[in-house]
Amino acid sequence: MARQSVAHTELCGATPDRIEVRGRDLNELIGKLSFTEMFLFHLLGKSPSPLQLTLTEAVMVAIMEHGLVPTAVAARLTLLGAPESYQGAIAAGLLGVGDRFAGTASECALLLDALAAAPEAERSQLAVATVGAFRRERKPLPGFGHPLHKDGDPRVARLLAIAREAGAPGRYIHALAVLEGAVSQVLGRKLPVNVSAAIAVLLREAELPREVIRGVVLTARCAGLVGHLHEESAVPAGEEMWEAAERAVPYRRPGERS
Amino acid sequence: MARQSVAHTELCGATPDRIEVRGRDLNELIGKLSFTEMFLFHLLGKSPSPLQLTLTEAVMVAIMEHGLVPTAVAARLTLLGAPESYQGAIAAGLLGVGDRFAGTASECALLLDALAAAPEAERSQLAVATVGAFRRERKPLPGFGHPLHKDGDPRVARLLAIAREAGAPGRYIHALAVLEGAVSQVLGRKLPVNVSAAIAVLLREAELPREVIRGVVLTARCAGLVGHLHEESAVPAGEEMWEAAERAVPYRRPGERS
Amino acid sequence: MARQSVAHTELCGATPDRIEVRGRDLNELIGKLSFTEMFLFHLLGKSPSPLQLTLTEAVMVAIMEHGLVPTAVAARLTLLGAPESYQGAIAAGLLGVGDRFAGTASECALLLDALAAAPEAERSQLAVATVGAFRRERKPLPGFGHPLHKDGDPRVARLLAIAREAGAPGRYIHALAVLEGAVSQVLGRKLPVNVSAAIAVLLREAELPREVIRGVVLTARCAGLVGHLHEESAVPAGEEMWEAAERAVPYRRPGERS
Amino acid sequence: MARQSVAHTELCGATPDRIEVRGRDLNELIGKLSFTEMFLFHLLGKSPSPLQLTLTEAVMVAIMEHGLVPTAVAARLTLLGAPESYQGAIAAGLLGVGDRFAGTASECALLLDALAAAPEAERSQLAVATVGAFRRERKPLPGFGHPLHKDGDPRVARLLAIAREAGAPGRYIHALAVLEGAVSQVLGRKLPVNVSAAIAVLLREAELPREVIRGVVLTARCAGLVGHLHEESAVPAGEEMWEAAERAVPYRRPGERS
Repeated sequence: MARQSVAHTELCGATPDRIEVRGRDLNELIGKLSFTEMFLFHLLGKSPSPLQLTLTEAVMVAIMEHGLVPTAVAARLTLLGAPESYQGAIAAGLLGVGDRFAGTASECALLLDALAAAPEAERSQLAVATVGAFRRERKPLPGFGHPLHKDGDPRVARLLAIAREAGAPGRYIHALAVLEGAVSQVLGRKLPVNVSAAIAVLLREAELPREVIRGVVLTARCAGLVGHLHEESAVPAGEEMWEAAERAVPYRRPGERS
Repeated sequence: MARQSVAHTELCGATPDRIEVRGRDLNELIGKLSFTEMFLFHLLGKSPSPLQLTLTEAVMVAIMEHGLVPTAVAARLTLLGAPESYQGAIAAGLLGVGDRFAGTASECALLLDALAAAPEAERSQLAVATVGAFRRERKPLPGFGHPLHKDGDPRVARLLAIAREAGAPGRYIHALAVLEGAVSQVLGRKLPVNVSAAIAVLLREAELPREVIRGVVLTARCAGLVGHLHEESAVPAGEEMWEAAERAVPYRRPGERS
Repeated sequence: MARQSVAHTELCGATPDRIEVRGRDLNELIGKLSFTEMFLFHLLGKSPSPLQLTLTEAVMVAIMEHGLVPTAVAARLTLLGAPESYQGAIAAGLLGVGDRFAGTASECALLLDALAAAPEAERSQLAVATVGAFRRERKPLPGFGHPLHKDGDPRVARLLAIAREAGAPGRYIHALAVLEGAVSQVLGRKLPVNVSAAIAVLLREAELPREVIRGVVLTARCAGLVGHLHEESAVPAGEEMWEAAERAVPYRRPGERS
Repeated sequence: MARQSVAHTELCGATPDRIEVRGRDLNELIGKLSFTEMFLFHLLGKSPSPLQLTLTEAVMVAIMEHGLVPTAVAARLTLLGAPESYQGAIAAGLLGVGDRFAGTASECALLLDALAAAPEAERSQLAVATVGAFRRERKPLPGFGHPLHKDGDPRVARLLAIAREAGAPGRYIHALAVLEGAVSQVLGRKLPVNVSAAIAVLLREAELPREVIRGVVLTARCAGLVGHLHEESAVPAGEEMWEAAERAVPYRRPGERS
């Protein structure tokens, strides 16, 4: 007996004269939905609520652009060497959206989920234990700390205010506050909440599955990289960046002392 | 005397308490702009017009998802082998948005730009010459033909209707009509306009620079791939697709005849 | 006081008339070293021993090609869509060399290292505990199991024989045998050792750092993908593979039962 | 009647107890062939000649490493942001091996092929015409010029000497000399031959198809990037390079003059 295949897709089916996305005629969606509405409809299989839409838009606007971060530099350097492959430069930039900088929102969401799931009376204790564990293992706490915005990333307060104004239930806002308190208690000083934590809070308040948080970040960053490549074509900066990077790291013959 | 550096960026500058994007306080944009408004503001350096916004949204909604196209298959197969690298799977998918399928909109825009720039009396003749040249070199004409939608991609009529309703000036809509006429004349039969041509028309009617068309496509496809990876995690199809692909291309010992 | 920079590179320095790689004149290496000798010299900073060279060559030959695996399919599908970007197709293929299939050798090396470091009397017990832990967490044991080569990957015996003949010290060969014994004991049946385990054994016997194992695999696979793209250009198979993959995963309207 | 499929692969077929690569038992190749022999056998479908092997090894050794070039910087910056995805950092580096720097060898081979195919009496004239055309279009001539090695890349003389010593037939060596002469004649000054031209000469003397030249370059660069990531893990330089790159390109508010 043949194996019964269960593999299927619910995303899209096309016949010669009709394209259907998640059960809806695509032509009825074009011109009706905004990009973000379509993104969420495609992802979740149902129309997003106003809250989901507001929070996702805010997050995507907030993280599209943050200057010449490593991913933007990598994209521009890749275009410098391979101008024939625009998509290659975009891909090179996105490959750096990983666990260390831009992609930490999903790691932070993991911590917030655990706190939000715990009984209220135990949350502070759990948060202190969590922060303590990261400290002992000398691992950076996802969602906290920033090399430049040492007194707090300006986007954080704005994003949290939007969540409150939009009527977010508040479970993850609260979980972040508990975590922030634990950080102060364990470290004996404040460590600024960074934008990854705010992303995690807003997208979990919007009930997006934790696994797609990085996907939202990647899409917003993709748009940002399009702007970088456009500027790079008009006002090239790649060679200057390369030369500066190269000069910053001199060759040392093995065995030589600096 | 030191070389006077002219490299600079106008995209973003950050100080400890303020992030500025193209001269505006980012915090004033978060919560005010939609993702697509921000994308266009970031790209163009000024607020998009209602027409620009409407056309860009329509294009991005139209091309986010088109089923298990090669880029979606590549992304899912990459996740299968490297589940630890979400961004790697997205990047693998985007790398296939190239000259042949998804990326032909910019090639088509090149033809439309040339037609739109020609004196009206010469356009038909230029279009016939262009189609003839592609035919002689046996190269596919960008924006025409589709393996499934042989009588026309359903998205095309919808997108062009939106452009007209939104009050697009019509230069590129007209250029496409001229090109379509030339195709019929040279080939002696109709060849369907595909969605890449419609993308080219709408984004050029929106006065987006030709060089960023592929960037708009990549961003919309990035969002679509997020949906594919989300479905792949919930309802895995990668192994079935791999096995089917492998079976379709059997090993033949060198020298053996089929 | 300015921060004292310690960033430097010992890999390569160039002056207008001389290129130096790790302290040696590159021109004295060209024509003298084979590719693999140069690879190891560049990596380790000293000439490889005959044993290191033999084992690395054997591994790289063994894993260059294994048919239409997911990474080869992804590379060919990417070339199909973006023929203008050869490096994009190669990159797409390499992105799938991850934790699940091709990249498990480094995970397996982690287990072998722990066993090799344990006192001999405790190794069996540690191996049983390790296998038991993977089983309880229902995680696949790195280096064991293969969908096709159920009685053992033919490359494994060959690679281990080469290691023995070449005079490898045998610590990791022994560790693998202990692990294999533990698998039989815990599972009550044999599970075949796969090629990732053999790669781990040989490269650790060659004293390559565990962190570079995936780099050796990627380089060998890169060479293999070059062959795939060359064949794809001559005898295209991408469209057949795509169509087969697409047919294998039909669209199901949400709510429909299969 | 069903369509007769002709898609097939001659690269590899596996049964449970045997893996065959291009008609040969893989186990008979492991331990017998060096990596480069296997690479060429896999690519060409037959054992390489001693000349082919010598020239390919020389090329791959020559281009594995050339310091902190843009591709190496991009790979290190990608690892900085996404340490969990080693293959992502390698892929990001390879994506910059394109038409402008590292990938120009295939463009140069195109010119050399045309010269080698022309009757001897017409070669000089064709070369002058070619150089003139590039000059008029203000396009860089593939294989000529280098920002640092202004009097000639030291690798070039070495590679050409190896080709002569190894008994290369000399068609492409001659074609390069003709092209070099034309450059001097048209420009009125010498422009140094760079390593891409030497790669093109040697690989065409080895009768490798022009289309795989970039594949050889990518494989050698892949090995080089493995060394960079290994050094980056031991002696991190990514943050210094990022900061230097960022400082080199300051933010300028739109409308501000520098």
